[in-house]
This record gives sequence, structure tokens and C-alpha cells, in this order.
Amino acid sequence: MELKKYVRTVEDYPIEGISFKDITTLLKEPTAFKDVVDQISEYCQGKGITKIVSLESRGFIVGGAVAYCVNAGFVPIRKKGKLPSLVINESYELEYGVDSIEMHVDALTEDDVVLIHDDLLATGGTALAALNLVKQMNVKKIYFSFICDLTFIQTEKKIELANYETHSVIQY
Amino acid sequence: MELKKYVRTVEDYPIEGISFKDITTLLKEPTAFKDVVDQISEYCQGKGITKIVSLESRGFIVGGAVAYCVNAGFVPIRKKGKLPSLVINESYELEYGVDSIEMHVDALTEDDVVLIHDDLLATGGTALAALNLVKQMNVKKIYFSFICDLTFIQTEKKIELANYETHSVIQY
Repeated sequence: MELKKYVRTVEDYPIEGISFKDITTLLKEPTAFKDVVDQISEYCQGKGITKIVSLESRGFIVGGAVAYCVNAGFVPIRKKGKLPSLVINESYELEYGVDSIEMHVDALTEDDVVLIHDDLLATGGTALAALNLVKQMNVKKIYFSFICDLTFIQTEKKIELANYETHSVIQY
Repeated sequence: MELKKYVRTVEDYPIEGISFKDITTLLKEPTAFKDVVDQISEYCQGKGITKIVSLESRGFIVGGAVAYCVNAGFVPIRKKGKLPSLVINESYELEYGVDSIEMHVDALTEDDVVLIHDDLLATGGTALAALNLVKQMNVKKIYFSFICDLTFIQTEKKIELANYETHSVIQY
């Protein structure tokens, strides 16, 4: 299935000069959405993954479906101040600014094998912050998945992430 | 399955006097998460639902999984300014303030049968705003689903929502 044709490119969003990859046009097509979830679930097979950790908020959509498919629990990483109980926090640089993310301290245990999922890998800033959060919990192993990987963006953060096994469904 | 025991109550969050229902403790338990998704997917059977419309951001988690299970497309309703293409907008009152939500104008068609899904039904403010957005698209039929319904909160908005067939998995 040619998934790329379902992704809409929005020019100059959120700021001038950025060609934004809009996945909402893919998500609304049942067969395309299913194909993305199936590919990531297939990638999870045989890895003993117990938790899907997803990033607010686009990461929640496919992350939730994959958690269902592979019989894993779902753990949200949210923006600062959005989680109601005790959290750990990590600050990071975005492509378009600076932000901070949080995860509940009781979300993971040392027995967990984790897939960190987000919709888009751009500079790797958010993914690396998520990795730093999850690493604090001393889990057994960490994998990554993304819907889209903007491989034309090369950063030091991405080189650090390359130490972890990663699956992306669509590459640009 | 007694799902209520997986929901954590956080007192005085986000403001004093509110007993917040935290579903993250349910989502991280694979069997509880699966049970919620299965119950809502079961509710969808025989209704010809073509799109799951979910509310940012907790609504995305189970909404995405249900879309997968029932072979529907997924449509996000997001906070103001978060969607990259042309949107329709609706303002509404929250339990704890005022906000505005948006949906892409090309997200739905007149042929769609829609399930609007969110994690929590409290005052009905967000759900009614979502309903007003979806109604603008002249879809064939609209249903609702929620993980938790705070039935002890009675509002005029909820009376208006009662005109639509609704399924909630857990009631308080």
C-alpha cells in the first residue's frame, strides 16, 4: 500500500519555511490507518513488549491501537502539568521552540519492555526526551516506532537515538 | 471485569474540591485497556460507523484503538491552532474554564456515520461542542461513547446530549 499519498503536506506550517507532514488525511482512511497500525504491531512481534509509551497528542492515536493489538499497556507522556499524579520531568528543544514533558513515576517498572511511539521523527528532540524519561525507570529494553521519519534532517540527537532499534513506516 | 478498581481518584486536581478520575492506571493494565476498547467496539457493531471522532488528547488513546477494531477512519478534534489545514471552530465552557476546539473541514462527509469518543463525560461541555462541530458536516448519524460518565453531575448540556445514543463503560 502506498501510504505516502495519504499524507498531506502543508507548506509554511507552523512557521514559514516548514513543509509540515499532516497525517490526519491518512488517519481518516480506514485501510491506510489499519496498515500503519498493523505494520508497527508486526514490528513488535517476538520482542516481549509490555508497554507502549506514546507522546501527546498525535502519538496517542496509533499508540493506543498498537497497545491493543499487541496486548500491551498504554502509558502517556504528556506536556508539563497535564498528568494528575506524581511525575518525572524532562525538558527538550523542539524544531520550533522549547518544551517540557512528563510521565507518571508509577507508569513503568523494571520488568517492562517498552516501545516508545510518536507520529513523527524530525530532529529527534522529543524522542530523546522521551528516552531520557523512560531510562529513569530502568526498564529491560527500549524500542522506537514512528509513522514518519524525516530522514533528510540530520542531528546529533538522531545519532544518539540510532543506538536503539527503530521502525518507521514512511520515510522522507 | 471490575474496571472501576483500575481508575485512580486524585483529590483536589486540577483545582481544590475536584475528585479527578485518572484513567492512566487503567490504560497501563493490558487486560483492562483491552476490555474498554472491546466494549466500545462491541457497541459500534451493526451501526455502520465510518469515522471515530475523538477529542484531544486523552480521547485519542481509546478512540484510535476503536477505529482500528471497527475498520473506521480516525478524525481528531484538537485545541485551537493545533490542526494545520482549514478548520471549523467551536467555543465551549469547561468544568474549569473556557476553551475552543477545531476540526478539519474535510474530515467528514455527508456519507459518514460518526462515533464521537472522549475519555470522560463530566458537565457535557466538551461533548456538546464536539457535537456542534460534527453537526456542521451534515453526517448521516451521530453516536457517543465515553470511558467514564460522572452521572452525579447533572447539567442542561447533558439533557441535550441525551437525544443521542450514548455508551459509557464506567459510571460514577
